[in-house]
Amino acid sequence: MGAFKYRGATNAVLSLSGEEKENGVATHSSGNHAQALALAAKMNGLKAYIVMPSNASAIKKEAVLGYGAEVIECEPTLQGREEGLKKVVEETGAAFIHPFNDWNIIAGQATAAKELLEDVENLDLLLCPVGGGGLLSGTALAAHYWAPDTQVIAGEPEGADDAFHSLDQGEIVPSIMPDTICDGLLTSLGEKTFSVIKEHVKEIITVSDEETIAAMRLVWERMKIIIEPSSAVPLAAVLKKKDQFSSKQVGIILTGGNVDIKKLPF
Amino acid sequence: MGAFKYRGATNAVLSLSGEEKENGVATHSSGNHAQALALAAKMNGLKAYIVMPSNASAIKKEAVLGYGAEVIECEPTLQGREEGLKKVVEETGAAFIHPFNDWNIIAGQATAAKELLEDVENLDLLLCPVGGGGLLSGTALAAHYWAPDTQVIAGEPEGADDAFHSLDQGEIVPSIMPDTICDGLLTSLGEKTFSVIKEHVKEIITVSDEETIAAMRLVWERMKIIIEPSSAVPLAAVLKKKDQFSSKQVGIILTGGNVDIKKLPF
Repeated sequence: MGAFKYRGATNAVLSLSGEEKENGVATHSSGNHAQALALAAKMNGLKAYIVMPSNASAIKKEAVLGYGAEVIECEPTLQGREEGLKKVVEETGAAFIHPFNDWNIIAGQATAAKELLEDVENLDLLLCPVGGGGLLSGTALAAHYWAPDTQVIAGEPEGADDAFHSLDQGEIVPSIMPDTICDGLLTSLGEKTFSVIKEHVKEIITVSDEETIAAMRLVWERMKIIIEPSSAVPLAAVLKKKDQFSSKQVGIILTGGNVDIKKLPF
Repeated sequence: MGAFKYRGATNAVLSLSGEEKENGVATHSSGNHAQALALAAKMNGLKAYIVMPSNASAIKKEAVLGYGAEVIECEPTLQGREEGLKKVVEETGAAFIHPFNDWNIIAGQATAAKELLEDVENLDLLLCPVGGGGLLSGTALAAHYWAPDTQVIAGEPEGADDAFHSLDQGEIVPSIMPDTICDGLLTSLGEKTFSVIKEHVKEIITVSDEETIAAMRLVWERMKIIIEPSSAVPLAAVLKKKDQFSSKQVGIILTGGNVDIKKLPF
């Protein structure tokens, strides 16, 4: 479905017990996790209930419906989403699958780094973006266990730099009113993801949206790969701190390409 | 450099004798062959002289200059290009590398099909686009020698359907005033490429520019790969003739992604 989120969602679905699977899965999300969980459920013959804010785009709703999930609309607030989810879980008995603060999700996201580490030996540095931290904590654990000499660094938008401040201050500092073109990185860290990031991530580099868009364009034009802004943040970080990455073997995880090609930032 | 043309240009350069290499290579081209030959020459330490029409886009000229080639401007007509090339060859002694009607170019282009056939066994059908026919004849020869059960089919724009008519009539029918968005497929077949195509290509399917743009968009949105219109023609052919390809193992060679992302057809 065009993003790494399917890795975590699939692992979360496959990790349910037979009994848990019977009532299906549920989540609230307006983004890639909604599509990922819907598709993972479909591929494994489970029902999926996705609580989506009433202002989510029609395209995203259609994608979720297209994967056979049931969409439940809610007020476009965190409270509305949580209440909508609670009601769905009570009525259906579905298992709630959190988009990132879940060990099975984290382990699923870790497979991206594991595959890269299997393909390329002797990486000095491995980068990915950070939003809620599911991919970043999975990446950090993969490096810790399978490539302990590889240091993990994250890129984060300046307009949603909660992970940067959290790592700096040693405690979760939530994003307030995040403002960035990277719509996949608006979320703040969770307790589980932060506990891993605090221990195993070397640094978080913040970049402006302008730097992100330039990096995105470079990947489109030179690598011919369609990536969304959120996915370009780590490359933007490398280009911003050229000296730090010079003469190093650098791996970058590209995370998704769900862009509206009629509304490009260039 | 974002297109298969680099395969042929590299093979042509590597196939020159030591003596031939001394004076470099030359061609006339406003398209991907110009960049391909410039880069292949640079990678092998040769000089390259590229005759380009005075109305070629600044972006394309800059790309050729960026690869270290010398650009010689000419009148934007076939006669102007051929005269410009003749003069350059006389003055420099450079070896002329034709963009497609050259056995070394054809053999170089054949490596794309060879790699695909090594990766995927039991292809029923293998498709690529046809312009001058370098890639198509290389693809047909690769299938003939390494996968004789695989049938080769080409996609061609309706607005430049000289290969379709040539195959139909058994002799080269040149394109007159081709008109299509597929700017890499405007050229007519050459004698060498036609001789292979006549013998080893099963069918040429023509498609409209509208069908090509829809196929291009599908690849962008679902595969997240940036391809140029010329590259989308074979997929457009498959989508047009669904019944013919149903239940078959179909391989498609994607040929290039040199598009101006500020001027998209969707």
